[in-house]
Amino acid sequence: MTPGEIVTAFINALERRDLDAACAMVTDDCEYDNVPMAKVYGPAGIRSVLEPFLAGCTSVEWVMHHQVEGGNVVMNERTDRFEIGGRWIGLGVAGLFVVTDGKISLWRDYFDQAMFTNAMTG
Amino acid sequence: MTPGEIVTAFINALERRDLDAACAMVTDDCEYDNVPMAKVYGPAGIRSVLEPFLAGCTSVEWVMHHQVEGGNVVMNERTDRFEIGGRWIGLGVAGLFVVTDGKISLWRDYFDQAMFTNAMTG
Repeated sequence: MTPGEIVTAFINALERRDLDAACAMVTDDCEYDNVPMAKVYGPAGIRSVLEPFLAGCTSVEWVMHHQVEGGNVVMNERTDRFEIGGRWIGLGVAGLFVVTDGKISLWRDYFDQAMFTNAMTG
Repeated sequence: MTPGEIVTAFINALERRDLDAACAMVTDDCEYDNVPMAKVYGPAGIRSVLEPFLAGCTSVEWVMHHQVEGGNVVMNERTDRFEIGGRWIGLGVAGLFVVTDGKISLWRDYFDQAMFTNAMTG
């Protein structure tokens, strides 16, 4: 699999809310950085952020608008959509991924925190 | 020039604060979207946003951390640094560019507006 295919498989696992599968695709020291919020490390760190959040969603769909790769770097532009409380919300995101030895070692998402907060509470 | 080389040349022109050169590299209907803020169109729209802002800077340096391309799409991760009032500020940005017939037809920057405001006023 190319780095881009690994990232696509990772995002597909998150859309299925299959954190076991997703966490198996990251390195032990993977940095997961939600730029305006906080960063965590490793499968346990990723799980600590995503498990409670995804548990609150009845469905998750991350629409990929563009994805490009070069060397071990993958970037994509997405609309991350979450069904919460019977309502769909969406957030525009640009993601950066670094793949090391077939696993994701860095995942950094750029977005506007106020747009996320407004979508959640709007 | 590849799409990535065109984007690099465009950013280099902005670092020189040479808006004539930068605006010559975009299509007449180019969309420039600062995602959490506003979007403008065409060379005149880009100039209306950047000219007053860059005029307030004594120096501009956009540090490119990663840039990848595929087809006519280019994405990069940057720290956009501006020297304003004798002080350097920096903002983490992920940018998406689409190049059409050798010119930039879409430029969309993802960042956190509060981080930008805090940097400007901090």
